[in-house]
Amino acid sequence: MSSVEVQHQQPEPATSLIPTLPGAHYTDPAIFEREQSRIFQRHWFAAARSSDLSEPGNFRTVDVGGESVVIVRGRDRSLRAFLNVCRHRGARLCMEDSGTVRRSLQCPYHAWTYGLDGSLVAAPNLNSMHDVNRDEYGLVKVALREWLGTVWVCLADEPPSFADTVQAAVSGRLGDHETIEEWGIDELVVGRRITYDVKANWKLIVENFMECYHCATIHPELTEVLPEFADGYAAQYFVGHGAEFGEEISGFTVDGQGGFGKLAGVGESHDRRYYAITVNPQVFINLVPDHVIFHRMYPMAVDRTVVECDWLYTQDVIDSGADLSKSVELFHRVNQQDFDACERCQPAMSSKAYAAGGVLVPSEHHIGEFRDWVADAISD
Amino acid sequence: MSSVEVQHQQPEPATSLIPTLPGAHYTDPAIFEREQSRIFQRHWFAAARSSDLSEPGNFRTVDVGGESVVIVRGRDRSLRAFLNVCRHRGARLCMEDSGTVRRSLQCPYHAWTYGLDGSLVAAPNLNSMHDVNRDEYGLVKVALREWLGTVWVCLADEPPSFADTVQAAVSGRLGDHETIEEWGIDELVVGRRITYDVKANWKLIVENFMECYHCATIHPELTEVLPEFADGYAAQYFVGHGAEFGEEISGFTVDGQGGFGKLAGVGESHDRRYYAITVNPQVFINLVPDHVIFHRMYPMAVDRTVVECDWLYTQDVIDSGADLSKSVELFHRVNQQDFDACERCQPAMSSKAYAAGGVLVPSEHHIGEFRDWVADAISD
Amino acid sequence: MSSVEVQHQQPEPATSLIPTLPGAHYTDPAIFEREQSRIFQRHWFAAARSSDLSEPGNFRTVDVGGESVVIVRGRDRSLRAFLNVCRHRGARLCMEDSGTVRRSLQCPYHAWTYGLDGSLVAAPNLNSMHDVNRDEYGLVKVALREWLGTVWVCLADEPPSFADTVQAAVSGRLGDHETIEEWGIDELVVGRRITYDVKANWKLIVENFMECYHCATIHPELTEVLPEFADGYAAQYFVGHGAEFGEEISGFTVDGQGGFGKLAGVGESHDRRYYAITVNPQVFINLVPDHVIFHRMYPMAVDRTVVECDWLYTQDVIDSGADLSKSVELFHRVNQQDFDACERCQPAMSSKAYAAGGVLVPSEHHIGEFRDWVADAISD
Repeated sequence: MSSVEVQHQQPEPATSLIPTLPGAHYTDPAIFEREQSRIFQRHWFAAARSSDLSEPGNFRTVDVGGESVVIVRGRDRSLRAFLNVCRHRGARLCMEDSGTVRRSLQCPYHAWTYGLDGSLVAAPNLNSMHDVNRDEYGLVKVALREWLGTVWVCLADEPPSFADTVQAAVSGRLGDHETIEEWGIDELVVGRRITYDVKANWKLIVENFMECYHCATIHPELTEVLPEFADGYAAQYFVGHGAEFGEEISGFTVDGQGGFGKLAGVGESHDRRYYAITVNPQVFINLVPDHVIFHRMYPMAVDRTVVECDWLYTQDVIDSGADLSKSVELFHRVNQQDFDACERCQPAMSSKAYAAGGVLVPSEHHIGEFRDWVADAISD
Repeated sequence: MSSVEVQHQQPEPATSLIPTLPGAHYTDPAIFEREQSRIFQRHWFAAARSSDLSEPGNFRTVDVGGESVVIVRGRDRSLRAFLNVCRHRGARLCMEDSGTVRRSLQCPYHAWTYGLDGSLVAAPNLNSMHDVNRDEYGLVKVALREWLGTVWVCLADEPPSFADTVQAAVSGRLGDHETIEEWGIDELVVGRRITYDVKANWKLIVENFMECYHCATIHPELTEVLPEFADGYAAQYFVGHGAEFGEEISGFTVDGQGGFGKLAGVGESHDRRYYAITVNPQVFINLVPDHVIFHRMYPMAVDRTVVECDWLYTQDVIDSGADLSKSVELFHRVNQQDFDACERCQPAMSSKAYAAGGVLVPSEHHIGEFRDWVADAISD
Repeated sequence: MSSVEVQHQQPEPATSLIPTLPGAHYTDPAIFEREQSRIFQRHWFAAARSSDLSEPGNFRTVDVGGESVVIVRGRDRSLRAFLNVCRHRGARLCMEDSGTVRRSLQCPYHAWTYGLDGSLVAAPNLNSMHDVNRDEYGLVKVALREWLGTVWVCLADEPPSFADTVQAAVSGRLGDHETIEEWGIDELVVGRRITYDVKANWKLIVENFMECYHCATIHPELTEVLPEFADGYAAQYFVGHGAEFGEEISGFTVDGQGGFGKLAGVGESHDRRYYAITVNPQVFINLVPDHVIFHRMYPMAVDRTVVECDWLYTQDVIDSGADLSKSVELFHRVNQQDFDACERCQPAMSSKAYAAGGVLVPSEHHIGEFRDWVADAISD
């Protein structure tokens, strides 16, 4: 995932089985803590949907790399992110997952008051403390970018290039920088959000998403809609390739019928096709002609991961009052099937049978790249 | 808190912000274990109210520094304390929080039987074991003192001077050794006891009690009764000073009305005033003209503390059947407000924003002394 | 327990108190992990009753030394055991405690399929992976023996001699190799199974079973049936000795009445007697004239142990529809009394009063041997 050019080349399929990460990487709390600081705090992290914070004063709190981050929209309509900790005595500023404040974030303990830009604007007796530098005691800022209607934050002091990481992952998968624009993701609205609490290490979920060798076994509805998935090669195996709908299939729905008509910007070559994109370390995006499914993963513990999944449609579809249930149901079932499989793997990761890891078949080739990416990211 | 003389001097107010303890001191189980052995096992610990054990054979079990301690009143009416462990195979002698035995503490596993003075008095087949020294297998004794109607225990082999620690803390706050006697605390009786289970490190609770900078923000009822608290200086900031009731206030109650008349011994200079005393590491005492509020803290885990709070009145008030509810309600609300604040701080102690700690404003000066006391107590 | 000959000698009773293991051996998770790998994974472990797996395709999953092991009966009616982990990506093969498969164990994630002999027989696209050695990717085998109607497994690469360990423990207790055969344990059937979830370290349970010094205190029903137990010497204290029923006792039941007539093979010298056998590290067997009680212990955590207890009767007794309740009730009460005692000890193991351990009286002599056996097993 280092550059777009490299990704354009087809990977050389492995001819024999190659190893996964060792089992301890899925069970050792010390390795998880290292991943929190080396991966989730250092990389761009998809924290929320921008539209969750549509009005000034709207805030959301999210767990990023073990830190509580508060994202808030200012009176100037800009989004900003801060560590959710008062600089005085450490109280959590916002306890709720989401909410609305007026003009400031006020600590409910001693009333230290911060502007929506994070600056310390007031505190009891502050004027009598002549030596206090208000700038020094503003909230700790977190880097923030918006793209694809998504709020990406980075806890690093010097965040990596957004273009070379997040955007390169998307273009590397689709084959160019422009294609993703066809879906107009930032204009779509959340038709349905489902949050899954998965009793499995986050990497099991990523690895599951990266291969389709399991599709024939656990995803009967999905392979009905996308027959080529029964062969075991995930859509993301080939750069620029989208899995084609079956001949009898008229929509990406649980029974293959219905759907809502192609999005206006989507080109004919992408109609009747499904594209899946993984953005390391915690985003999965599915593109189909009439909607987009956007997963954000929140690793909570070495054996627990929360996944927030948005089904995104045009404003027109939502306004029409259309029944989304068959559209949502397809990938909701896929999610449940996948997360059940991940939860079945988690307890075996501590077995001596898995001490050196398992093996990858050739169609699971991408997991090997992910393994190397993780191992490199947490090494000294 | 080293001597009474030093405490008589007013502290020099800090002119700028000084640091708190680093965040890890509130979240690291290893530091908590060190505090258990270096602080709670080595200092005098207020374990119970003497009147909880009014009759011979009455016992209470309490957690002190990670140990279960059983306190029992003997046939000679003396109180004694022991580790709550049979010397034979380690069974807990008393499983209940409190209860009554007859003449002995008998282990329910193999019937080893100990006198209420802790000596081994009987065991099956003991007479045939000629080499067994009964003195050697008595219960492990714990030092015990009674003062202010309170049972203080110390797990150290050589406890520190009670006068130089517990009593010096009280006299250092009030300005002399005699004033505390005016309330006749050992003669008062428990009108109400409320036990709080707080999801916060014990030091957050101590620190909260040591400053009133938060009073205006979270204690509307208390600042109504004690208007000077709205300025942010805790009563204990000035040696010998008691916060004065507001002009319209006739009692230390939730609505400022009622109350039960000054205790007989309380001098006129202490009428219509509120005094708060902290005795390191786990006692808070509030003195008002007509009653006393006595808090005992029991640290249970790095992020969990139990607080047992007694409201103490004269026997006459209790016998009269007077309604205590408005009297109790004031500080019960204060407790709830404070403990909510502590619970709001606990999760942020692990943030990198708090890795080096927070800051103290000048009116929180006492917390800096407490910080130094703790750091010194757990250092090598 | 090294050889039968040594066990024939009566132990020299200790004349004074000797120490138990230090308290940390009952509370330290690191010591428990060492016991899992050094004791429970290296010794023969009674995993299940053979009759739990009576038909081809029947399986049971059990926790052995921290590993999930699946035991399955093949089409050839042989029992085999494997680590319950797919060799591909580590999914648990069997999630249920017991069940039935047809001709194979198929992983529900990617459909890798193993014969009931553990060999890899099929996987999607396997034929196209020319380099894959199917033998290399069979399930990890676990050694298995059947004896006394029990499935014994061993996770070690080179299991110890079954004769020198398991069988020597039984014959060492009874005085010879032949006596155990009189009860025909492999022909008996399970009349009742009760599973206990005990909040105590496994060694507290073993130690409890090894002495009868507690019998007079906590087992009123048992000492009524076996009056000599009131003296405090366990049946296993003397090699070959069985505790005799009281004169008024006609059966090993909760009220001493009834019972089902002597098993056909049991000799007259063993009638009206009770024998108890401990097989390190996790089996207790009780022999009485008309039935057998067989305990299998499963250590789950340093402070938690599951005990599965079978009451075994002849097929004739079961077929007759006889009321087993008074027969089962006697030892069920004994179990509850014992496990309550163990749970009372567990919390005190972390006390400084038990840091160096407790003491053993002379009649607890066998616990000293067990202590040495454990200490030796986990040492380097």
